Amino acid sequence: MLEQVQGGALSVDEAVKRLRAEPFEDIGFARVDSHRAIRNGIAEVIYGAGKTPEQIVAIAEKMRERGQKTILITRLSPEKAAVIGGQLPLDYRKDGGLGVIGELPEPDGIGVVLVITAGTSDIPVAEEAAVTAEIFGNRVKRVYDAGVAGLHRLLANIDDIMSATVIIVIAGMEGALASVVGGLADCPVIAVPTSVGYGASFGGLAALLAMLNSCAGGVSVVNIDNGFGAAYQASLINHVKS
Amino acid sequence: MLEQVQGGALSVDEAVKRLRAEPFEDIGFARVDSHRAIRNGIAEVIYGAGKTPEQIVAIAEKMRERGQKTILITRLSPEKAAVIGGQLPLDYRKDGGLGVIGELPEPDGIGVVLVITAGTSDIPVAEEAAVTAEIFGNRVKRVYDAGVAGLHRLLANIDDIMSATVIIVIAGMEGALASVVGGLADCPVIAVPTSVGYGASFGGLAALLAMLNSCAGGVSVVNIDNGFGAAYQASLINHVKS
Amino acid sequence: MLEQVQGGALSVDEAVKRLRAEPFEDIGFARVDSHRAIRNGIAEVIYGAGKTPEQIVAIAEKMRERGQKTILITRLSPEKAAVIGGQLPLDYRKDGGLGVIGELPEPDGIGVVLVITAGTSDIPVAEEAAVTAEIFGNRVKRVYDAGVAGLHRLLANIDDIMSATVIIVIAGMEGALASVVGGLADCPVIAVPTSVGYGASFGGLAALLAMLNSCAGGVSVVNIDNGFGAAYQASLINHVKS
Amino acid sequence: MLEQVQGGALSVDEAVKRLRAEPFEDIGFARVDSHRAIRNGIAEVIYGAGKTPEQIVAIAEKMRERGQKTILITRLSPEKAAVIGGQLPLDYRKDGGLGVIGELPEPDGIGVVLVITAGTSDIPVAEEAAVTAEIFGNRVKRVYDAGVAGLHRLLANIDDIMSATVIIVIAGMEGALASVVGGLADCPVIAVPTSVGYGASFGGLAALLAMLNSCAGGVSVVNIDNGFGAAYQASLINHVKS
Amino acid sequence: MLEQVQGGALSVDEAVKRLRAEPFEDIGFARVDSHRAIRNGIAEVIYGAGKTPEQIVAIAEKMRERGQKTILITRLSPEKAAVIGGQLPLDYRKDGGLGVIGELPEPDGIGVVLVITAGTSDIPVAEEAAVTAEIFGNRVKRVYDAGVAGLHRLLANIDDIMSATVIIVIAGMEGALASVVGGLADCPVIAVPTSVGYGASFGGLAALLAMLNSCAGGVSVVNIDNGFGAAYQASLINHVKS
Amino acid sequence: MLEQVQGGALSVDEAVKRLRAEPFEDIGFARVDSHRAIRNGIAEVIYGAGKTPEQIVAIAEKMRERGQKTILITRLSPEKAAVIGGQLPLDYRKDGGLGVIGELPEPDGIGVVLVITAGTSDIPVAEEAAVTAEIFGNRVKRVYDAGVAGLHRLLANIDDIMSATVIIVIAGMEGALASVVGGLADCPVIAVPTSVGYGASFGGLAALLAMLNSCAGGVSVVNIDNGFGAAYQASLINHVKS
Amino acid sequence: MLEQVQGGALSVDEAVKRLRAEPFEDIGFARVDSHRAIRNGIAEVIYGAGKTPEQIVAIAEKMRERGQKTILITRLSPEKAAVIGGQLPLDYRKDGGLGVIGELPEPDGIGVVLVITAGTSDIPVAEEAAVTAEIFGNRVKRVYDAGVAGLHRLLANIDDIMSATVIIVIAGMEGALASVVGGLADCPVIAVPTSVGYGASFGGLAALLAMLNSCAGGVSVVNIDNGFGAAYQASLINHVKS
Amino acid sequence: MLEQVQGGALSVDEAVKRLRAEPFEDIGFARVDSHRAIRNGIAEVIYGAGKTPEQIVAIAEKMRERGQKTILITRLSPEKAAVIGGQLPLDYRKDGGLGVIGELPEPDGIGVVLVITAGTSDIPVAEEAAVTAEIFGNRVKRVYDAGVAGLHRLLANIDDIMSATVIIVIAGMEGALASVVGGLADCPVIAVPTSVGYGASFGGLAALLAMLNSCAGGVSVVNIDNGFGAAYQASLINHVKS
Repeated sequence: MLEQVQGGALSVDEAVKRLRAEPFEDIGFARVDSHRAIRNGIAEVIYGAGKTPEQIVAIAEKMRERGQKTILITRLSPEKAAVIGGQLPLDYRKDGGLGVIGELPEPDGIGVVLVITAGTSDIPVAEEAAVTAEIFGNRVKRVYDAGVAGLHRLLANIDDIMSATVIIVIAGMEGALASVVGGLADCPVIAVPTSVGYGASFGGLAALLAMLNSCAGGVSVVNIDNGFGAAYQASLINHVKS
Repeated sequence: MLEQVQGGALSVDEAVKRLRAEPFEDIGFARVDSHRAIRNGIAEVIYGAGKTPEQIVAIAEKMRERGQKTILITRLSPEKAAVIGGQLPLDYRKDGGLGVIGELPEPDGIGVVLVITAGTSDIPVAEEAAVTAEIFGNRVKRVYDAGVAGLHRLLANIDDIMSATVIIVIAGMEGALASVVGGLADCPVIAVPTSVGYGASFGGLAALLAMLNSCAGGVSVVNIDNGFGAAYQASLINHVKS
Repeated sequence: MLEQVQGGALSVDEAVKRLRAEPFEDIGFARVDSHRAIRNGIAEVIYGAGKTPEQIVAIAEKMRERGQKTILITRLSPEKAAVIGGQLPLDYRKDGGLGVIGELPEPDGIGVVLVITAGTSDIPVAEEAAVTAEIFGNRVKRVYDAGVAGLHRLLANIDDIMSATVIIVIAGMEGALASVVGGLADCPVIAVPTSVGYGASFGGLAALLAMLNSCAGGVSVVNIDNGFGAAYQASLINHVKS
Repeated sequence: MLEQVQGGALSVDEAVKRLRAEPFEDIGFARVDSHRAIRNGIAEVIYGAGKTPEQIVAIAEKMRERGQKTILITRLSPEKAAVIGGQLPLDYRKDGGLGVIGELPEPDGIGVVLVITAGTSDIPVAEEAAVTAEIFGNRVKRVYDAGVAGLHRLLANIDDIMSATVIIVIAGMEGALASVVGGLADCPVIAVPTSVGYGASFGGLAALLAMLNSCAGGVSVVNIDNGFGAAYQASLINHVKS
Repeated sequence: MLEQVQGGALSVDEAVKRLRAEPFEDIGFARVDSHRAIRNGIAEVIYGAGKTPEQIVAIAEKMRERGQKTILITRLSPEKAAVIGGQLPLDYRKDGGLGVIGELPEPDGIGVVLVITAGTSDIPVAEEAAVTAEIFGNRVKRVYDAGVAGLHRLLANIDDIMSATVIIVIAGMEGALASVVGGLADCPVIAVPTSVGYGASFGGLAALLAMLNSCAGGVSVVNIDNGFGAAYQASLINHVKS
Repeated sequence: MLEQVQGGALSVDEAVKRLRAEPFEDIGFARVDSHRAIRNGIAEVIYGAGKTPEQIVAIAEKMRERGQKTILITRLSPEKAAVIGGQLPLDYRKDGGLGVIGELPEPDGIGVVLVITAGTSDIPVAEEAAVTAEIFGNRVKRVYDAGVAGLHRLLANIDDIMSATVIIVIAGMEGALASVVGGLADCPVIAVPTSVGYGASFGGLAALLAMLNSCAGGVSVVNIDNGFGAAYQASLINHVKS
Repeated sequence: MLEQVQGGALSVDEAVKRLRAEPFEDIGFARVDSHRAIRNGIAEVIYGAGKTPEQIVAIAEKMRERGQKTILITRLSPEKAAVIGGQLPLDYRKDGGLGVIGELPEPDGIGVVLVITAGTSDIPVAEEAAVTAEIFGNRVKRVYDAGVAGLHRLLANIDDIMSATVIIVIAGMEGALASVVGGLADCPVIAVPTSVGYGASFGGLAALLAMLNSCAGGVSVVNIDNGFGAAYQASLINHVKS
Repeated sequence: MLEQVQGGALSVDEAVKRLRAEPFEDIGFARVDSHRAIRNGIAEVIYGAGKTPEQIVAIAEKMRERGQKTILITRLSPEKAAVIGGQLPLDYRKDGGLGVIGELPEPDGIGVVLVITAGTSDIPVAEEAAVTAEIFGNRVKRVYDAGVAGLHRLLANIDDIMSATVIIVIAGMEGALASVVGGLADCPVIAVPTSVGYGASFGGLAALLAMLNSCAGGVSVVNIDNGFGAAYQASLINHVKS
């Protein structure tokens, strides 16, 4: 644009107006946006909760028009999935409440993202995490129902823990698994408290506080039941840039 | 007394008056009190916090006059202990903030009370528990600084865990040790959350909630930093009556 | 296996591989597991909440194949019980939401587990506790609706309180019963706060905090509404090992 | 004033201006104020916390100039009391942190205000309540250290409980005393949670919640440590007007 | 009984046995019970929530057999009321969710119980309080929708406030009405926080805390939405005994 | 700059570089900054808590060098003020913990900012607000100690309430004053909860929640004890721009 | 009335009686009420939640009889709107759950009220705010879905932010938008936390706390989801009186 | 060892005994420990809070004897540092409360760890993070006092944000900086809430909740004020292994 100004093809006034109109995109944010394009390039995400199937279809179609190959819809109920599936080629992953449109990319991360849960009730959150990680190009290994009350089950998977590039630990109730895994692993651990439990679990608060106070180093925490967020963070780590 | 009434040595009016005066002791509570005597017989306890050394000396002397051989003073600061020690033969246990007057009894419990802590900062609470248990006639074994972030330290003590009659688990921060020990042990586990930690430990709340939500069976919980209460409960278990 | 190695029947490499494959079971954890077998031997437990009847049937059948005689299903709704009952010989205890498969064992504990509730609304939690204790081989005595607002009702049962081996106190609202029973009894008291109440009971929080702060010694606490956990702990106490 | 208007001695404009100037006192609030005078007539109260001794002396002297015979200063530290006592005839009640200037009035209430505490640590709050009640013209009976863990101590005072006109129950920790007394008494019970306790007492929150959830009828609650407020309410009840 | 012993009509052994069998009723608790009979004599109360209509009918019929003339059923839904009304002469007060069996007694209290609400949404709690007070023999005056945001509405009722014997203030949201009424009245004020509100009212917690911190003297508080408890307390005050 | 490009005085490359170097200031943020200059022009503010007197002096001198005439230092202790006053011409307002360097500007707001407190303990927060408002060019009127328990004191100031342009209500304990003033006023009301109180005031939480739930329209809330923030907001309202 | 007294048409006694009967309205409150009339004159508001359609119709008709031209019904469900719409000329704004009866007034405020949301899920609260502001005579500009995670979207609207007279920022989750807008704008910002989010958002608590702690000056906060309250406050600011 | 068995140099019994004695180290945990050695190899860490200078010196000397070259002491007060510095070559970093013994290693991470703070009060936590990261072999870049209320300061550092390998965001009060940075960056962001703030910041809770609810992807959270934990996690990411 500056060249147009230099060449006289664009008046100064018009240039100022354009700069004002999109001040950030033209200069600083263009770089942000292209960065984000790289980051999000593999897949775009629609948060399905609180949207009607019609809204989701409309958004997804717009994304496809823009050339987006893979789309992930999170927090998607079977009922909504049925409606959407009638209009778009939807691969619905019931366990994690996820809808996938398009192909899963080839894994291109540094290593393996390990997803461990304390109990079977934590599996929906774990699947949200695991499939999300796959969508973003990660090889994923699942170890479910390996809570600390049966330590031998966890220790039986010690090879996976020690060879993982990043670990997502998913646990409700007292959330102790994060500390135990954090003590065994030598890679970053992302802990996801779940709302599994009753009474004094206070909807996941007990697990959340426990994980934040983990005595093991190298553990960070995301919101309760936020499998997606943990996987997104894990994927960034597994694709870490120099 | 009824015999006195029958024999005429006591008027009905006087008998009614006496019964009113101490209605519970004469009938139901006498048994309660003798029961309690058995329970408390070995040692009586003075809660030292919020009492002056003079008050503590006065109470202790009254107990000794009644024939009490062993007296335990909890939450006792070194300063108060120094004053009391000038007037009474006090054995001050600085680590647990406990003062002992009289001999420790021979252990007469069923087995061993195992006291485990997650960290070194939990030791004051642990010593409060351990010495209390000893005062009430229990053999005590201590395993300190065996938190879950270094699982091999804990597992190195697996024999003690598996042979204990009752275990007191003491941990601050995320309190995960209670669940791990609860999963390994086959005896009752009493968990004591401690106020060790900062930030989102909220003065022991994180550990308390974690312990209440323990996924391991056989774990019950006492108040934050309540080493005495855990030991008292443990002693009742170790002296369980048929 | 070491003998096989010594005898040459097993190569060193193969032995290492086997040890790695099940490192904990072969050595340390085998003992844990046999301990646990003893502990859990009488009955195995399925947590029914969040499982489909089909899942429960499948798990129960696998347990029966392994030779398990008695199976306890907790948090089981009447609807699920009806489905399961069509496929397995289920004894459904509606009051406590429990399903029992197989015979109740003969009581083999030291003494009596006393279950006391403050109100009639606490009975479902109490029955979860009482039947669980029975399943694990305990003689159980029930005293329901003996809250502290009508102290004479409670005191009318003072003989049961004073002769029990372990007491489970179940109360919602202000949870005061735990302290009063704790003051009368000379055995371990396990307090179960319930979510009975409204407003500032905050789903059982008021009772939970009250019980944790009990001025009576010998009281420990489990999670809100956790009748099963209290009974499990009580059974360990009533079968305390030397 | 209206007569002055009628008689012409006051212009309508002037009357309106006067009415505007003190609209509430002249008409409605005059009655409020004379009511309050009756209510507060016996004694006026200075909240001592956060005021300097000089400020307190100044306020007290102004009250005395207005003809106030008895003045109560609450939350008064010994240090401040010493300063004030050098300038005014102060009767300092150290146990309750109260300063009294002037005579205590003759009791003129309907019956007796009974003040019961659970422990000895609750006595400062109890004395704040007891002396306040005396200042407001009530006969007061004190029963201290009668917590529910030693039920016989409480029941030994059952005659006082049953003959009181209003009872103030003061307890920290789990606050169970309010429910037990509420179940025994047939008069209004005002419960005062205290900040006595540690850990999960959360500065009196546990006792507060317990008292609000009391299963006994006829129990209402004031703020944590608010002995003054309970006594003020009790005095209103003991001087109830038709 | 003692006279029987004195006269020889009863052996000492038999007397001891009887005393043991009902130790509390014969001596101390008999008086408690007769006291309670006086207190509760006018009406007995069934807490309707969590009971089936059949259970309520059964309890009510047993009470009627014992000679109880007036029965109050609280927290009674219209559906349950319809069923009960088919079997018993039930006067259902829909606004307060109360069922009345039998006649309302003539008011015999000292003065008037004034029930004030801040808004129209507080009326269900207010009616629970008002009808309860009537059932227990109190003259009741209702002032509804007089919140502090429209102060003139409240002040228009200042005569009622100043002539009441006891006032029940019912308010949700910020609960400010309790302080304003407490400042105007010269009689005891019982504050009932309600769960009316949203967001940061946290189910009545905001109003509860505000009322506990009231700057006005003479205000005590009951549980959130506890209209019954406030009325019961108010009735005790309005029938205060010397 | 674009004209320089057009005229050839600046190469395109150099222009891009400059734009990149300060992308936000040149285009969008320049306006933000000049806006902010207008907003903050009258006075700049130093948050004094957690800074040493030396740091404060250094910052203030830099501001003065930039030509700033009036500087406000908040949360300033008397000790720090003494040190600073030795180096700079400091006008220290002890009541509000504020230091002023330079002249107070002439008031140039639309009308009057009224500052009302419930009690005398709220005055430090009120003075922080009042002096801040004066520094930002507002006429301020103070009405202190006008809490709702003495409604006539508040109503005596009704003229001020009704003629104010914006009102800052400052109250601790139950915070009811905000609702009452909000109901009387017809201008924006900014409520400041204070940490004045004890027990269940939880450091100002009770007042904060009450104010957020105010039943009166036109009330918004700032952080606990944030007199500065309320005054800043009030000044923006009193200088509202078209 | 005073003139009637002066003229003899009204006796002094009768005048006193009238003044007592309506003491506040005749003198002080008349002014309050006429003030309020001005304030509320444009529109009256019915809070629709918890009212039946019949009740709403009745209230609205009474308002119309009094001459009210515009009526706003908030928190109105589509079902209720359908019923009301059958009886009254209702303009139902589904997005904000608002019903409007009568014409929207011409905007007469000082400038523009800008309503910004962080996400699309915040739109219902935003529409409640926006339509309310319109009803009260304000020009409104909407900028939706401009959360801080996509800063360029927000900055693209910087002209609107800098030219607004008052801004309403609506955000759930972490509520960061309020601080960012507060840092950019030079007008008052009213922040509305929403209950959008899950897990540790605790129903809007996270956003509420964040907004109260905003590091940007000039931000005040209303209750969670309280779009109406924010708009009412904004309208007062936009119509600020001298 | 197996080879010894095979060769006959070790009896089977002795082998079993050895395996039992150190069951975990020989098999599974040996690998854990060597892993950990790699992980911790660069530096060992002593948590200084709650340890005496003498204890710290003793631990540090033992580490040095084991050959540890670099030792980090966290949460170290100047007083303790002075004592330790008298006995060991301590490099005390006052800003972050850190003591370093030995050389800082050459950075060997993938890229740059960027440490950003919202305010100057967050610097102590930031320095704890920054120096910790340096100790563990990371190149660190600091951007301090770049809070969202002055967005241009943050955006002036956009190049650093976009080129970082991992970012640590440190903010108190409302913690909004985490979301804004999370929206700009395309690398993992670790958020550290600080206890900076007052009132409704509740010791860092407001910032903690905000960060957990961040609308930006790729943000995980550690405990309040846990600069060390964030840096440890960041270092693991910056040294991520395949």
